[in-house]
Amino acid sequence: MTDVLDLAKRLIAAPSVTPATGAVFDEMQAMLEPLGFTVHRFTRGSGPAGSDEAPVENLFAIRTGAGPKHFAFAGHLDVVPPGEGWESGAFAPEQRGDLLYGRGAVDMKGAIACMIAAVADVPADAGTISFVITGDEEGPALHGTRALIDFMRANDHAPDLCLVGEPTSVNRLGDMMKIGRRGSVNMWLSAKGTQGHVAYPHLADNPIPRLVAAMAELEALVLDEGTDWFQPSNLEITDIEVGNPAHNVIPGEARARLSIRFNDLHSGASLSEKVTAICARHQVDVRPVISGEPFLTPPGQFSGMIAAAVEAETGVVPEASTSGGTSDARFLRSVCPVIEFGLVNATMHKTDEAVAVADLAVLARIYARIARAALES
Amino acid sequence: MTDVLDLAKRLIAAPSVTPATGAVFDEMQAMLEPLGFTVHRFTRGSGPAGSDEAPVENLFAIRTGAGPKHFAFAGHLDVVPPGEGWESGAFAPEQRGDLLYGRGAVDMKGAIACMIAAVADVPADAGTISFVITGDEEGPALHGTRALIDFMRANDHAPDLCLVGEPTSVNRLGDMMKIGRRGSVNMWLSAKGTQGHVAYPHLADNPIPRLVAAMAELEALVLDEGTDWFQPSNLEITDIEVGNPAHNVIPGEARARLSIRFNDLHSGASLSEKVTAICARHQVDVRPVISGEPFLTPPGQFSGMIAAAVEAETGVVPEASTSGGTSDARFLRSVCPVIEFGLVNATMHKTDEAVAVADLAVLARIYARIARAALES
Repeated sequence: MTDVLDLAKRLIAAPSVTPATGAVFDEMQAMLEPLGFTVHRFTRGSGPAGSDEAPVENLFAIRTGAGPKHFAFAGHLDVVPPGEGWESGAFAPEQRGDLLYGRGAVDMKGAIACMIAAVADVPADAGTISFVITGDEEGPALHGTRALIDFMRANDHAPDLCLVGEPTSVNRLGDMMKIGRRGSVNMWLSAKGTQGHVAYPHLADNPIPRLVAAMAELEALVLDEGTDWFQPSNLEITDIEVGNPAHNVIPGEARARLSIRFNDLHSGASLSEKVTAICARHQVDVRPVISGEPFLTPPGQFSGMIAAAVEAETGVVPEASTSGGTSDARFLRSVCPVIEFGLVNATMHKTDEAVAVADLAVLARIYARIARAALES
Repeated sequence: MTDVLDLAKRLIAAPSVTPATGAVFDEMQAMLEPLGFTVHRFTRGSGPAGSDEAPVENLFAIRTGAGPKHFAFAGHLDVVPPGEGWESGAFAPEQRGDLLYGRGAVDMKGAIACMIAAVADVPADAGTISFVITGDEEGPALHGTRALIDFMRANDHAPDLCLVGEPTSVNRLGDMMKIGRRGSVNMWLSAKGTQGHVAYPHLADNPIPRLVAAMAELEALVLDEGTDWFQPSNLEITDIEVGNPAHNVIPGEARARLSIRFNDLHSGASLSEKVTAICARHQVDVRPVISGEPFLTPPGQFSGMIAAAVEAETGVVPEASTSGGTSDARFLRSVCPVIEFGLVNATMHKTDEAVAVADLAVLARIYARIARAALES
């Protein structure tokens, strides 16, 4: 089998803090072409570095097989910034003991190395396999997987099933897959009034009572009781800001921010409407920004394939979960059923991110089993 | 009669941004001694400039009369900082048209000049007259009138009645006196929780809902319906601060600040207790700082003397009000009945603070009438 550890090291060694372009994609292309893949790469975004419009590279690679089925591995080569305090270099992959250290080891260059090792182990004529790999999953994600989906649709390359290699395992490899994710919407609340002196409240109009009343009503809201597959939707007020340093001044404006993680009983639009209606009764303005809609691939044939592959290699039956934050599966859901499964996420986004070297080989075998099962399905 | 305009100019020309010491007190001493007053001056506070403990000068002057009564004029020689944009120098008094410009023209060097001109017009044997003048009314007021009260008590110089020369007139000289002031207390609210990720609310403890619930309950509080002499006590939330820039983070702490202006149905302590009890039910901590207790000199003989004097000189009957902020009357109330009456307050604390020159002469005559009436009472 391909040396998955070597593949992982090569990907980690190419720095790729989000948004990623260039070298790390060169590495991946060099790995895929010998395996018979046709590699398409394109860059989107032309804004300055640091802006939401900074350039993002995307890679779509395809190996067309004899069978009718098309299975896709999806993921991202960009990583979060390394931060301070690494024992070895964040982009100088180093094996110490049983672990391979480096930024992206689990999120998710390690998993991408496993995907590449896996396809080397799947006969080319078994069916069509593709890679849907972006350089912007950790950033604004405006020009990443969305652009790849446009590309796939434009070129008639939409897969039948898609596995995203996010690090979904919690305590040991294989204990959890994600069959869905909650949606996410942030809302900015703003109440305006008239500034004045606390000794003369009749000459002022304090916006805080209206904002407080709106927030109290929002806090009392029960969005739902959860579903078979999702925990209850949850609203958190995450910030309040008045910014009035003067003890004797009634402020003229008050602002708050809230975040809702919601299940498939809602949409970003339906929640925006609900919160806006409540706030309107208190003369509080709302500006919603929807980060992602929920997705669910209900347990069935695809999750069964994944569970069988995981159990065969690890003895563990993965829990089918919908917990946690958003991922690019929120976009890919529009193309085909999508499930996420990958490495243990304990060190993701942290200093000294590391993957168990043994897990890389096991995950490569699991991915190969999943790909074969998907193409045979 | 003494040239009250000249006295006002001399006081204004001695810069005395709060806390005041030195030259401005030298001027006042030089004005009072020729009128038969014994002048006591003392400085309190030994901290650095800008601190609450910065040195403050105080002046107590007394002219002992034959009669049994002791009437006191109280006030302050310190002024608020001039700020920018004066047409003439803030400490270079200048008469333009009917107005005398300069910082302190109405608040309250002008009124002190009127008091001095007034006592020159009251026979020395009519009774005992004193001046209770601080250099820190506009600042923290820790070492000002409080220290003067200690001095008066220690030297058996407590007056029978006291008039504070704050600028209480609103549209024209004489239209308002203050027979009371509301008390004032500020409270700092703080709710602590546990920071976390919005996607995993069960691992965090958002303090905002508790703070919002406490604030909603505080906003619903009706402290009272007002009294014969006071408007209803009023609570304003003046600031809320969480300071959480991250959309996906549940914050670990939330803070708010409120200000209560209250009538004589409450005390700073009773309100602190009430708010603390409400907040405690929501695990919100409260730190109260009482700025001043309310005072009331109910309408009667003293306010009658003032009203009669005002009406005799201006034709106006002053309204007996308890509106507005706090003043040093909050301290003097512990010594004897106290009422505030002074110049038109339209320009107080503003750029180009100015007094109508004609008002100075009228107020000097009003003050003289009040002093004579008080000593005869």
